Amino acid sequence: MSAMLSVEEARARILAPLRPTAAEIVPLAEAWSRVTTAPVLARLDQPPADVSAMDGYALRSVDAGSRRVIGSAPAGHPFAGSVGPGEAVRLFTGSFVPEGADTILLQENATRLEDEVEPTEPVREGLHIRRRGQDFAVGDILVAPGTRLDARAVGLMAAGNHAWASVHRRPVVAILATGDEIALPGDPIPPGGIVSSNAHALAAMVRARGGQPLVLPIAADTREAIASAAASVRGADLLVTTGGASVGDHDLVQPGLAEQGFVLDFWKIAMRPGKPLIAGRLGDTAVIGLPGNPVSALVCAVLFLLPALDVLQGLPAAPPPVSRARLGGRLAANDHRADHLRATLHIQDGVTVATPFPRQDSSMLRVLNQAGALILRAPHAGALDEGAEIDVIRLDILGI
Amino acid sequence: MSAMLSVEEARARILAPLRPTAAEIVPLAEAWSRVTTAPVLARLDQPPADVSAMDGYALRSVDAGSRRVIGSAPAGHPFAGSVGPGEAVRLFTGSFVPEGADTILLQENATRLEDEVEPTEPVREGLHIRRRGQDFAVGDILVAPGTRLDARAVGLMAAGNHAWASVHRRPVVAILATGDEIALPGDPIPPGGIVSSNAHALAAMVRARGGQPLVLPIAADTREAIASAAASVRGADLLVTTGGASVGDHDLVQPGLAEQGFVLDFWKIAMRPGKPLIAGRLGDTAVIGLPGNPVSALVCAVLFLLPALDVLQGLPAAPPPVSRARLGGRLAANDHRADHLRATLHIQDGVTVATPFPRQDSSMLRVLNQAGALILRAPHAGALDEGAEIDVIRLDILGI
Repeated sequence: MSAMLSVEEARARILAPLRPTAAEIVPLAEAWSRVTTAPVLARLDQPPADVSAMDGYALRSVDAGSRRVIGSAPAGHPFAGSVGPGEAVRLFTGSFVPEGADTILLQENATRLEDEVEPTEPVREGLHIRRRGQDFAVGDILVAPGTRLDARAVGLMAAGNHAWASVHRRPVVAILATGDEIALPGDPIPPGGIVSSNAHALAAMVRARGGQPLVLPIAADTREAIASAAASVRGADLLVTTGGASVGDHDLVQPGLAEQGFVLDFWKIAMRPGKPLIAGRLGDTAVIGLPGNPVSALVCAVLFLLPALDVLQGLPAAPPPVSRARLGGRLAANDHRADHLRATLHIQDGVTVATPFPRQDSSMLRVLNQAGALILRAPHAGALDEGAEIDVIRLDILGI
Repeated sequence: MSAMLSVEEARARILAPLRPTAAEIVPLAEAWSRVTTAPVLARLDQPPADVSAMDGYALRSVDAGSRRVIGSAPAGHPFAGSVGPGEAVRLFTGSFVPEGADTILLQENATRLEDEVEPTEPVREGLHIRRRGQDFAVGDILVAPGTRLDARAVGLMAAGNHAWASVHRRPVVAILATGDEIALPGDPIPPGGIVSSNAHALAAMVRARGGQPLVLPIAADTREAIASAAASVRGADLLVTTGGASVGDHDLVQPGLAEQGFVLDFWKIAMRPGKPLIAGRLGDTAVIGLPGNPVSALVCAVLFLLPALDVLQGLPAAPPPVSRARLGGRLAANDHRADHLRATLHIQDGVTVATPFPRQDSSMLRVLNQAGALILRAPHAGALDEGAEIDVIRLDILGI
């Protein structure tokens, strides 16, 4: 057993050996939230030609006075001829500007009479024309590799003429809850037992962050049961266990995994809630062993599992996003462990205020559920007064 | 045609007639991000009895000195007897506290010798015991109706012994792109044509916000094609059209929908980008007609479609979330239209800085894609210097 690690060291050691999943091709319509494996290049110019930015008339700025309207060209129906001296073509937003014309006369600045149109305002060369390739040109990088595709990126890929996306496969994350005392929701509860909640919350987190959860049957508190479950997940990208991660007589995750012949690390991390954490590898499958306590398990998952899911999907190794807030209350000086205080968030005078719950007991799942954020307290941080600037991890934004 | 509406009025008029979808039952494992229709009540006490918060020994605080260890009770295996004078029972985190015992002696504060255990620190009544129902008690409301279920709420429902969730059905949102000039990505592009991007970006937004997109075939610029598409979506909760929403000769969405005999509103909204917006109802299907311009369509979707999706899922009617930021650059005074400037976001000295792109042309999809936020500029807002406090809509958080 090594000495107490900091949260940052532990995260670095968990993330370092992880490799992004390989590529797969998905239809663009299903690519939302997936992470690209390669640059996406524009396959055409946008706009594809000089086009009108408004409804109006294409004409020559050198001419003067009334012009003869020689045709009309809605978007998608380009005018076949060209605009000569004293001529104009009726255009609409997105219509190609016909050859010969060099400006657009807005329809609200024109008087139309039969086949004649006369400007009521002066025209000037180049007005209201969007130039070919103004948004992007063939070969431009529209989306960089390692980008999580949001709705706008999906639109941009479509505009660049992509019907498919090359993305990292969803990491398969096996989730193993251990313990004689836990039962699935709705199933008979053994005497002295409780209902399993960690596996289901973790599965939802994995889904929220782009992974594919694989919830294993609950393993009894025997080495054999844990070893057998571990053997069943070869090929998964990550195995997450909850419970039995300490070193008590009944903490069998370590010896159970060890029976599979794999080298495992075991750490105590200088953090609260949570402390013992198993990390290591079972063949190609990375392993993170979380505490059984629901709040500890979920806070550790925010700090270590979410970043691991990002790295497995081809995103950079990074801590969960931290925001600034003001402290709504006072805090005593912290001890040697990094603390993660469950807190409510509210907006006051446009500023985000985070107020810690009075009860921080790590068994209080309901308090975690009501929390909008975790207040970050560094080891040995000093006491703080109300209104102090603090760092928080916003849980609401993470979908967890 | 009515006078120019404000963004707020337009949103209120779009949202007012919307009704949440009915309930469906989904397995808890698939309930993440869905919105509850009813309160979720705890079906048991948590913890189910007084339990030990640590590994140690249950004993009586009135006794003194060494105790005889009469048994051991791992979590899930409650001790059958009771603890009498001078007795102790070995416990672990989560073990039920046996009858007779009133405190937990931590194992690190105990000397164990054969069947005897002696405290090395004084014990005090009630220490290290989590009381029955301390987290929640039978009948407590764990999750309120109208809550979007995050991973923690899924965990809490599991802990409360729920295997199923009653949630609002995913609103079905039909998406209709119109225009002779547009083609699906990868399909042959007609002369003067471009590739359809709005429908795919909107479908991703609908998916991101919990709806079920239904992308219709592209409708040609004829009343008949639009009317026929409209007739095909009876039963959808919402129809979103893009393109042809203005009043030009080739803007046929209004007359096309009108052929189905339905009353439609048409508004000009005092906003930029975007201005014309169609709203109304086709029988039970609400209709929002967005501009064809990609940036206008997506900005209007953020302002009107996302809130509509929320209301259809049983969430309160609300504008998209607004955050504070500092202005990175200067802004001229605004005209009479609410503006939504595409801007980058970066953090400087812990403060979020939003810097508008120099080019705000509403055809620039690539600029929208690179934007982290929309800077909100109220009608007639005055000029601003660098560093001014501004309101932004963070696009990165919305997953769009």
